[in-house]
Amino acid sequence: MRELDVDDVDDIARGAGILGTGGGGDPYLGKLLAEAAIARHGPVTLVTIDEVPPEAVVVPVAMLGAPTVGQEKLPNGTEPLAALRALEQATGTTATYLVPIEVGGLNSLVPLALAAETGLPVVDGDAMGRAFPEAQMVLPTLVGIPTSPMAVADDKGNTLVLNARSSLWAERIARAVCIATGCSVFTADTAMTGAQLTDGLVAGTLTLAEHLGAAVRTARAEHADPVAAIAGMVGGIRLVTGKVVDVHRATTGGFARGGATVAGKDTELRLSFQNEYLLAECDGEVVATTPDLICVLETDTGEPVTTEAMRYGNRVTVIGIPGDPRWTTPAGLELVGPRYFGYDCEYQPLPAGEPDPVGAAG
Amino acid sequence: MRELDVDDVDDIARGAGILGTGGGGDPYLGKLLAEAAIARHGPVTLVTIDEVPPEAVVVPVAMLGAPTVGQEKLPNGTEPLAALRALEQATGTTATYLVPIEVGGLNSLVPLALAAETGLPVVDGDAMGRAFPEAQMVLPTLVGIPTSPMAVADDKGNTLVLNARSSLWAERIARAVCIATGCSVFTADTAMTGAQLTDGLVAGTLTLAEHLGAAVRTARAEHADPVAAIAGMVGGIRLVTGKVVDVHRATTGGFARGGATVAGKDTELRLSFQNEYLLAECDGEVVATTPDLICVLETDTGEPVTTEAMRYGNRVTVIGIPGDPRWTTPAGLELVGPRYFGYDCEYQPLPAGEPDPVGAAG
Repeated sequence: MRELDVDDVDDIARGAGILGTGGGGDPYLGKLLAEAAIARHGPVTLVTIDEVPPEAVVVPVAMLGAPTVGQEKLPNGTEPLAALRALEQATGTTATYLVPIEVGGLNSLVPLALAAETGLPVVDGDAMGRAFPEAQMVLPTLVGIPTSPMAVADDKGNTLVLNARSSLWAERIARAVCIATGCSVFTADTAMTGAQLTDGLVAGTLTLAEHLGAAVRTARAEHADPVAAIAGMVGGIRLVTGKVVDVHRATTGGFARGGATVAGKDTELRLSFQNEYLLAECDGEVVATTPDLICVLETDTGEPVTTEAMRYGNRVTVIGIPGDPRWTTPAGLELVGPRYFGYDCEYQPLPAGEPDPVGAAG
Repeated sequence: MRELDVDDVDDIARGAGILGTGGGGDPYLGKLLAEAAIARHGPVTLVTIDEVPPEAVVVPVAMLGAPTVGQEKLPNGTEPLAALRALEQATGTTATYLVPIEVGGLNSLVPLALAAETGLPVVDGDAMGRAFPEAQMVLPTLVGIPTSPMAVADDKGNTLVLNARSSLWAERIARAVCIATGCSVFTADTAMTGAQLTDGLVAGTLTLAEHLGAAVRTARAEHADPVAAIAGMVGGIRLVTGKVVDVHRATTGGFARGGATVAGKDTELRLSFQNEYLLAECDGEVVATTPDLICVLETDTGEPVTTEAMRYGNRVTVIGIPGDPRWTTPAGLELVGPRYFGYDCEYQPLPAGEPDPVGAAG
């Protein structure tokens, strides 16, 4: 158990942006929300999974929508609490812990902001170990913990509580509501007991994000290579270093969908995304796929580049990081593998080998 | 207070189909649902508004969607009860009466079927005095009774309860859910107390539907003109008698939208619809608009022709019937007048004059 204060937010936001693989919302927006809430209400208590009692009611709270929209249409700040209260009222329970549903710039910090506001502690972990675009793409789905009841709150004051037949139907219905209300809503769903957290979460990812963010900050201060620092810490494999020479992106179906090309010295890497980077192909060959993490970083600074913020001319390094091993089981791949997203290829592990000190190639 | 048995359903279904102005769902489907439920569970008690105690909890239950879809994708039969129970659970109240939200072939009979199943009595009336396509288009909206909380249930077992910021937002969100789940859902919303029914309902419309249906049946048996019988009973004005020579129809935005042309002896009447017939133009002049009822009837039989069932070659008579006077107030017209639906004209009352014995012109 430890406290997170305003000064800790910056590192977490940057690190969560890296692990968010391009999605999870704008880290800068998440940073502002969390810093403002902590400054107003005081520090947040962060606990490890081991410290949560088995009967605890642990509720993930998150933004759901297209980050292209979330970037321009800011939340009014009341949505996360409205979603949490709607869920509590519908279920007749009271949340005792909050937790991020995913690692991502905004979605790792929404629970921190709400924790400051409510005084609830936050569990150090998340339900994906990265960010994924759809609500059912969480480890709890693999062990039969349902997404429903799912509360949704928008910026206009609309709330609803959904009891869906399956977690996939929860996603479909919540996505339709999201689109109808402006493509950016907040959710409270996939509530777990403390006893379910070992199966339902990847442990320690907020601390990992903080360490990554700190490593980037330190590398910059020491004029070292921040991308090498990241890759070294998480077993990252360099896929390319180069310049973004093409980006196409559309907000469709409640997602930011599109692709990008990064031209390196000798090769071109093509990226495909749906909120998150999901597929990387090099000269026609698949080199990395979901559920492994495909992270785009500014080569000079190590700052994560989200799918909605990527621009022509960005000088970036793309690294691959192995995803949580539960995602590469047959059931995991059925839920989040490349075929689910419509890509005509099988999952293939990242190239073996030592983590590449990418700075040398940059 | 009286009982409705299986034998009463046929007349109500036909009459409600007439007052439904083309919408409210297939009368035949409604008839089958209500007859089956009454045959299984016993007769339904019908009460007048005066007989409802002021503290009663009166819940409208209805189908919401595109009748083009409802015609092909039948309900599984559990949706109305699922919607009612979800609403009761969310509000902590128990419904003591059911009522149709609108007069329409299906939607007048859904509450009867659910009443047979649950043993609840049904109030003789509805919240429109006709059918309209959108959830907020009810008299309760005019007196500040909200659509929310609104429960939605689909054929797959998904349910949700919505607390919308406004009744228009309830419609928008429920429509999005409806589209996402297959364009045909059931709702329980706009709950009223007994004390609110005088403002919130048009009284006696189930009995009126029954009388209209009986009048058509009698006219046929006596080889009299059924359309004249209808027009005489409700002050209907004949707009045209002729043949349907054109129909264009699309299922868009969760509605059946389109238009049709009826060629009479000397004139052509053009109809525009969104689930319901909403505008009638004759040789370029507007002759009838929402909120007055525009009813399309088979000339020979008096059977109502719904917007989803209209076909090239139908021999029909179109009549106009004055809507409830509360709809032609400024607030009423803002909610359901022609401009709301995008028609570039003002509401104009139906031509004055004696009800036209249309049979003479057919």
